[in-house]
Amino acid sequence: MSLGQGLYHKRGLWLNGDLMAAEMAQQPDVLTGLIERRAEVTRELAAVVTPTPLGIVLIARGSSDHAAVYGRYVLEATTGLPVALAAPSLHTLYDIEPRCEGFLAVGVSQSGRTPEIVTVLERLVAGGARAIAMTNEPESPLGHIAEAVISLGAGQERAVPATKTFTAQLVAFAFLAEALGRAPWDSDDWSRLPDAVAQILDDPEPPVAVAQAIGHAEGLLTVGRGYMYCVALEAALKLKETTSLLSEGYSAADLRHGPFAVVERDFPVLSFSAAGPAARDMLELTQWLRQSRGAHVLRVSEDPGADLPLPRMEAEALAPIAAVVRAQQVAYRLALYRGMDPDAPVGLTKVTPTR
Amino acid sequence: MSLGQGLYHKRGLWLNGDLMAAEMAQQPDVLTGLIERRAEVTRELAAVVTPTPLGIVLIARGSSDHAAVYGRYVLEATTGLPVALAAPSLHTLYDIEPRCEGFLAVGVSQSGRTPEIVTVLERLVAGGARAIAMTNEPESPLGHIAEAVISLGAGQERAVPATKTFTAQLVAFAFLAEALGRAPWDSDDWSRLPDAVAQILDDPEPPVAVAQAIGHAEGLLTVGRGYMYCVALEAALKLKETTSLLSEGYSAADLRHGPFAVVERDFPVLSFSAAGPAARDMLELTQWLRQSRGAHVLRVSEDPGADLPLPRMEAEALAPIAAVVRAQQVAYRLALYRGMDPDAPVGLTKVTPTR
Repeated sequence: MSLGQGLYHKRGLWLNGDLMAAEMAQQPDVLTGLIERRAEVTRELAAVVTPTPLGIVLIARGSSDHAAVYGRYVLEATTGLPVALAAPSLHTLYDIEPRCEGFLAVGVSQSGRTPEIVTVLERLVAGGARAIAMTNEPESPLGHIAEAVISLGAGQERAVPATKTFTAQLVAFAFLAEALGRAPWDSDDWSRLPDAVAQILDDPEPPVAVAQAIGHAEGLLTVGRGYMYCVALEAALKLKETTSLLSEGYSAADLRHGPFAVVERDFPVLSFSAAGPAARDMLELTQWLRQSRGAHVLRVSEDPGADLPLPRMEAEALAPIAAVVRAQQVAYRLALYRGMDPDAPVGLTKVTPTR
Repeated sequence: MSLGQGLYHKRGLWLNGDLMAAEMAQQPDVLTGLIERRAEVTRELAAVVTPTPLGIVLIARGSSDHAAVYGRYVLEATTGLPVALAAPSLHTLYDIEPRCEGFLAVGVSQSGRTPEIVTVLERLVAGGARAIAMTNEPESPLGHIAEAVISLGAGQERAVPATKTFTAQLVAFAFLAEALGRAPWDSDDWSRLPDAVAQILDDPEPPVAVAQAIGHAEGLLTVGRGYMYCVALEAALKLKETTSLLSEGYSAADLRHGPFAVVERDFPVLSFSAAGPAARDMLELTQWLRQSRGAHVLRVSEDPGADLPLPRMEAEALAPIAAVVRAQQVAYRLALYRGMDPDAPVGLTKVTPTR
């Protein structure tokens, strides 16, 4: 389904979820477009991160904040540098004087116009940081503050839940990691990524079954670890936004520190796992949740028998870019199952750019 | 109720929640003991934070992680330095090589024995950081890695949900902020704090009413902003641990970025507000949640008419140390209301030190 069809429906036969489905379907093309610009983007970034910064501060809210959690893992893993997620209120409400000479600050905003994000990036630059922006709008206020802009090229977003911008943001963070350090992936991994995403989009039945399994549950937990932690967070947000289901995302380790107490018999848990060092921890956790707590664990993984299968990815660090598409599919299908419109969830609005 | 009485009950008439109640009741004494050591502690810390670090990394899990969120606000506000919360898996699973020469690393663990926290502090020291530990056990592995230890002096914790250690950890972070920068409070604020906590403990009726109002709800959100954000997170964890209620903590700003979609008519929201720059945002949010979403907002604040009143605190940055006691009371009362034992919630255990 193309975006054009979605717009047609808007004037004529408008169906729940047309926009979200259209934007999800655009992801292989958006990713391909971004990956084609990889050499150029990393070259521009390299100029801003030379000399190597002392540390990195990421600034984002909502879905973009979950992209920043991915950024935090991938940047810290490739550079060893401390990476912090900014607390905007310290700047916008408490008016602190940041001291971040030698640091790199990265502002992430779909529109580049979220006032809070713009203000914090501005303040960090005033405090001595060099700045990069990740946005769909390079000519936005955020873009103008930054020394280099990664233009996501995801195009206009019409559905309220962000999908194509999110996967593009993850790619942008991976590009920044390449510019800063030695990344554990190569060109072949990039060229295979759009196909992996397309393969998931071409396999819509498992999400229908998972949505039915969740059904009218009153609560749900999502869980991941390492690189997949950001996917658990984003899945929980997508489910909240599109279906009003109270769903909370956890790292496998944090879940063990108490919160699993909410898991009673048949409580649904959506677990995200990639092949790699965190896989064993995730497997042990899901087995324990099933056996000791009677949880209904729904697994998103490359393993045979997964409820939502993932295509095999060589590079674990890029696996979240594909896996989050499974989360989008579940949110979309569960909204339809519950008779809701994933494009425009109850009470939610998107700042629509003037046309 | 003293801990002695709790132990007596353990051998004789053992009642649900005796241990948690006893440990909550010890908080004015624990805080007084810690505040009496303030000059000595800040002097020791000053030696480790001279020269001023380039940035700060905090390492914690569970309740201690929420104390670290407080630490993040109070340290960044007093110093302007970037403060990051460590992602332990990068060190324990992905084996990254940290580069943190000139940084300060702070490990937070009640027992000082959580292997993950010990390992990460060790790795950051190997990567060039100077280290501070906050623990009840200065002779623990965590204490031995650190150049300076803030001994919390909270004594043995027997109830599974941490209470007195948490408030002591917040004080420890405020002491560290004093050692590093110009803190917006003085000795008078410290001397009034134990009384403020005692005043809350001596007013147990409002939490009983709030627990009844929450009743058998299936979900709940907690919300705060700025310094109070950590209290929202800790309240949500305490409720999950003691009552199995799915409760998630949010900053007021993040809640507006989508998650409020879960708030339907009569959905309970527990809001924490202190007098200060974030108060207006909190007031607007709670009014909006009531009017537009029909939420059942229960307010913890100094304002007249609050569901859970707080004593007036001059220093906003110290207000969370008192406010979190209201959260403990609600978790305790809701557990009893639901016929559960807050001391030993279903499925949860505490690593008990050998006696």
